[in-house]
Amino acid sequence: MTAAQFNWNVRVYYEDTDTAGVVYYANYLRFFERARTEWLRHLGLNQEKLAAEEGLRFVVRRATLDFVAAARLDDLLQISVRILKLAKASLELEQEASNQGRRICAATVQVAFLRNADFRPVPIPVSIRAKMQP
Amino acid sequence: MTAAQFNWNVRVYYEDTDTAGVVYYANYLRFFERARTEWLRHLGLNQEKLAAEEGLRFVVRRATLDFVAAARLDDLLQISVRILKLAKASLELEQEASNQGRRICAATVQVAFLRNADFRPVPIPVSIRAKMQP
Amino acid sequence: MTAAQFNWNVRVYYEDTDTAGVVYYANYLRFFERARTEWLRHLGLNQEKLAAEEGLRFVVRRATLDFVAAARLDDLLQISVRILKLAKASLELEQEASNQGRRICAATVQVAFLRNADFRPVPIPVSIRAKMQP
Amino acid sequence: MTAAQFNWNVRVYYEDTDTAGVVYYANYLRFFERARTEWLRHLGLNQEKLAAEEGLRFVVRRATLDFVAAARLDDLLQISVRILKLAKASLELEQEASNQGRRICAATVQVAFLRNADFRPVPIPVSIRAKMQP
Repeated sequence: MTAAQFNWNVRVYYEDTDTAGVVYYANYLRFFERARTEWLRHLGLNQEKLAAEEGLRFVVRRATLDFVAAARLDDLLQISVRILKLAKASLELEQEASNQGRRICAATVQVAFLRNADFRPVPIPVSIRAKMQP
Repeated sequence: MTAAQFNWNVRVYYEDTDTAGVVYYANYLRFFERARTEWLRHLGLNQEKLAAEEGLRFVVRRATLDFVAAARLDDLLQISVRILKLAKASLELEQEASNQGRRICAATVQVAFLRNADFRPVPIPVSIRAKMQP
Repeated sequence: MTAAQFNWNVRVYYEDTDTAGVVYYANYLRFFERARTEWLRHLGLNQEKLAAEEGLRFVVRRATLDFVAAARLDDLLQISVRILKLAKASLELEQEASNQGRRICAATVQVAFLRNADFRPVPIPVSIRAKMQP
Repeated sequence: MTAAQFNWNVRVYYEDTDTAGVVYYANYLRFFERARTEWLRHLGLNQEKLAAEEGLRFVVRRATLDFVAAARLDDLLQISVRILKLAKASLELEQEASNQGRRICAATVQVAFLRNADFRPVPIPVSIRAKMQP
């Protein structure tokens, strides 16, 4: 893990698979969110507190997913988070799920920072932006 | 469907199955909730409004599930709801998932009526109780 | 619904929402798959049989999702499927989730037709292609 | 963790919550399965291999769940597994989800050992039973 990249491991359980014997495609969005959440926690950000006390949260606006290969029951996936662009009220992230170095699913994710009450974008506080700088 | 029983159909999609080729066991609780929701809607109850305007909701307190047989992709399951007991601030329901008359999963579900803010039980309003009487 | 577009309704239940009060983002991929499955069924295709007897299935290779607005508990979403491109061994689809005409989530989905055993692309049978022509 | 009890931590993410602000009730069955899987792994059992090579698996036949209190986003739940009864072709387990010692959900789970092809019970191999003895 370089300063600019965060990694999080996700184990594949029965709940994640489907009858084709592979991880169900929607679940990669779950895995990517778990990694983003742990990345924010790692940066010292408490999303629950941010939402409860300030009514602010990060929300995915756009995601592009490439399903490259299949993952299966019991696989231990590495999920990465890397900042591509840090704008005033949004982020662009590159995320990847890989299995022992083999690429499984690759994504570009655009995340907006917004007020929960009206879903309006809000500038990311300087204290948070500073932590996100590579 | 008798006056005392409500039925709701649920189609099995890829998302509901697991790598063993059957419906993942936790998903029967989802199917049972869909049927309860549609039953309440059928009785004229708007859960969303009840929660938003009065801060009240039905919450499952206890569930006993028997997984009798497997369901598979594309099966069209019939989910039933039948009142076993109607108490002051709670309900006991019998629910079943069946496939063309064959029992797949059978459940007994205890549902409390409560205030969302503090999870304290609240008497079910007479107007709602009247609709629930068989 | 024109000849070239298929629509399927999806009700939002508790299971689909998250603590932010909206439909959890990964669930749109579930809704889109439900609509694709019902579209294939509508065309007379039995995916379960195709997989069991011929070992063939449609698999999403790429998806781009725009999360435009939020959907909430009890919303009845319309999910559309429209063919953008019909190639030899793949499809490009436009899918949208809308709520009473208001766009909630828009997607472009690339689907490959492949042999389940080795995930190799296989030409879509002429009988199926013929049904998919607008 | 005593010899007779296995514990596994589960973090609550957005995907696990619902619009009432709490963990969606069906997800406790997911959490319990994750803990059972990790317990079996801890005992040296490879479920994936057992299923692929011998066509055998553990399947839940009955579950009784008490939903005692609510869990929320970011909670770190401790999930326990304890054998209540070890029979020839089945197990009875006590499982609990707790948050810093506070009981959230308690379950009794009956698990059968069976042949995947016909769902018939099969005696649990002596090598596995020996590992399960407290």
